[in-house]
Amino acid sequence: MLTISNRGKMMPPSPIRKLVPYAEAAKKKGTTVYHLNIGQPDIETPKMVLDAVRNSDFTVLEYSHSAGNESYRKKLVKYYASVGIFVDHTQIIITTGGSEAILFGFMTCLDAGDEVIIPEPFYANYNGFAVAADVKVVPITSRIETGFALPPIEDFEKVITPRTKAIVMCNPNNPTGYSYSEAEMQQLKDLLVKHNLYLFADEAYREFTYEGNQFSAMHLKGVDDHVILMDTISKRYSACGGRIGALVTKNKQVLDAAMKFAQARLSPPSFAQIAGEAAIDLPADYFDTTKAEYKSRRDLIVKRLNAMNGVFCPNPGGAFYAMAKLPIDDSDTFCQWLLESFEYKGATVMLAPATGFYGTPGLGKQEVRLAYVLNLAAIDAAMDCLEEALKVYPGRK
Amino acid sequence: MLTISNRGKMMPPSPIRKLVPYAEAAKKKGTTVYHLNIGQPDIETPKMVLDAVRNSDFTVLEYSHSAGNESYRKKLVKYYASVGIFVDHTQIIITTGGSEAILFGFMTCLDAGDEVIIPEPFYANYNGFAVAADVKVVPITSRIETGFALPPIEDFEKVITPRTKAIVMCNPNNPTGYSYSEAEMQQLKDLLVKHNLYLFADEAYREFTYEGNQFSAMHLKGVDDHVILMDTISKRYSACGGRIGALVTKNKQVLDAAMKFAQARLSPPSFAQIAGEAAIDLPADYFDTTKAEYKSRRDLIVKRLNAMNGVFCPNPGGAFYAMAKLPIDDSDTFCQWLLESFEYKGATVMLAPATGFYGTPGLGKQEVRLAYVLNLAAIDAAMDCLEEALKVYPGRK
Repeated sequence: MLTISNRGKMMPPSPIRKLVPYAEAAKKKGTTVYHLNIGQPDIETPKMVLDAVRNSDFTVLEYSHSAGNESYRKKLVKYYASVGIFVDHTQIIITTGGSEAILFGFMTCLDAGDEVIIPEPFYANYNGFAVAADVKVVPITSRIETGFALPPIEDFEKVITPRTKAIVMCNPNNPTGYSYSEAEMQQLKDLLVKHNLYLFADEAYREFTYEGNQFSAMHLKGVDDHVILMDTISKRYSACGGRIGALVTKNKQVLDAAMKFAQARLSPPSFAQIAGEAAIDLPADYFDTTKAEYKSRRDLIVKRLNAMNGVFCPNPGGAFYAMAKLPIDDSDTFCQWLLESFEYKGATVMLAPATGFYGTPGLGKQEVRLAYVLNLAAIDAAMDCLEEALKVYPGRK
Repeated sequence: MLTISNRGKMMPPSPIRKLVPYAEAAKKKGTTVYHLNIGQPDIETPKMVLDAVRNSDFTVLEYSHSAGNESYRKKLVKYYASVGIFVDHTQIIITTGGSEAILFGFMTCLDAGDEVIIPEPFYANYNGFAVAADVKVVPITSRIETGFALPPIEDFEKVITPRTKAIVMCNPNNPTGYSYSEAEMQQLKDLLVKHNLYLFADEAYREFTYEGNQFSAMHLKGVDDHVILMDTISKRYSACGGRIGALVTKNKQVLDAAMKFAQARLSPPSFAQIAGEAAIDLPADYFDTTKAEYKSRRDLIVKRLNAMNGVFCPNPGGAFYAMAKLPIDDSDTFCQWLLESFEYKGATVMLAPATGFYGTPGLGKQEVRLAYVLNLAAIDAAMDCLEEALKVYPGRK
């Protein structure tokens, strides 16, 4: 009999997308579904970014350089300098979304059976790339009581083995919204040096830091060879469908090897590279407006959540996610129940159960992730739904 | 010390791109370089395909469905029916280029250490995806004397082991241009059934078959679960930079598992999906013009090559590649010499040494691949260069 591979079997399904059929059924019944479950912003992609593609005048949609267009990489050098990251264009490989930057990083630095430490809860798709690369994810737990701050360094030390090769840090964090401080990043730096580890720095949400500026892993001194930045334009410019990201590092060996993976897949998408390049020319105040919008949404959602009986939501410092602890038995059951069996004023809300973001089985059963990617009125209405739902949910605890 | 992974070390560099620095140096000296080394067609992307993107009016560049836009997949069903391939839209996963379809196929069907048989010479990037998936490529040799026809089935039988899980067939073939006959495909079918193997069918060049129609692996009866089609719009519509392909199969288990890999990387590029969808509406005679152009180029290049003293070039039935045997000592040395030390009337020609397309070390030293992606006048001039070069090359044999 033909069988699929073990990795095909082990590959986790998307924890966010598994509720989609229930949402579709709810909509078919006529119920409005407020989507707070997925990081697809409603913010418009800047017109000049889309126009750059629409006004392009080439006649052959050619392969680009495998590392991406040189003109784009040279412009990115300026963008990175503007956030205190000093690299040259040969230290940047344009990837197909941040996703491919993660895959290239894993493939280039880790062998089958190697281990990578990731503070949990974490972006669920790291699991997928780990299965693809046959790498073991070792979670260490950050806790809602501390707002998901960096776990104590001793917790990292405890799980380090001879197979440990890297740490993944998402900063600001998806799913928690936590923004790691400079002090926390310096602690990590010492760990990198002591144990000779790579730091994969996923900084997709760099601009969305609401108190002060993000401290990038690329700002750390003396660990140039350790740090591999995995970046994307998806959230920054509300351009998720472009599938344009970047792997950035000063480690020449890693660049050379990642480049071979880049050559095998020929090139990143040409249209969206034009969009990414145009985005660098957005006016300096572009992020102010977007950030102000996200911040007011955050303030509203956190306030509404903490005003609900039995709910706790730490104030996230960045990204556009909040994690809340709810008085419920099981977040998977609850999120499905919201779509299947509940409505309030003709509407309900779709949330992401936190269980999918934990590597340790059993954790996250009382937590949900809320992506504040809807406008204030919609968030308010969604919070009305959630508040009412918690009053009547049969599994309330 | 920080080290990169073994797979990072083993990953082969692109055999086609390694000569690029020599070509750049030649151009800096003022020499015209005729690029017959790479499958980037000069044919214009159809205007209506580019216009579909340029005239799009969405305001948010969103993620698409992980399997690609449903509207596109439904249109592809019609395209496939037009070439005698009958599938529904749930049997199609849109991928980021044919490259990702290959990667998903390998990841889904093969585990680390599994073996895949590929007739050589073969598309060099299969090696890259095999390293990424930690899969062993087992080459069996097809020969220039037979025009690179399917090797005898006994040659396949000889290398089959308990770890053999699949065969990769590129039809029409890159790099040989050979178009496999229905009889050859039927022989392969029996092998699939007998040894319970997958057939990965790379049919990127389906439309470019110059005598009769391509016989698709999807036309084989009774092996629906065995066949996985890896497709792309890159060559078909001269849209290489779009990075849009497809994995197509009737095997539900494979689809379900591949879908999990697709979800992990979120979605294929949105802009180029619009292009791909528009391409299905091209007039029925679109391929006639393109095919006629490629055919006249093929006829010219094959005639010119065979008229050269000591050169043999079998007439390729499809794709836009020809493989020629030259009276030389070493194709890598020769191709580099063409760029470094030769010019004729201010020009030289860039070819791909065939060594990079063979899995067996030592093969291909007297062969080169020529991609006929330039117009007739340029091909003629390039052949003038090659003819003169062979007269004066110090390593002539």
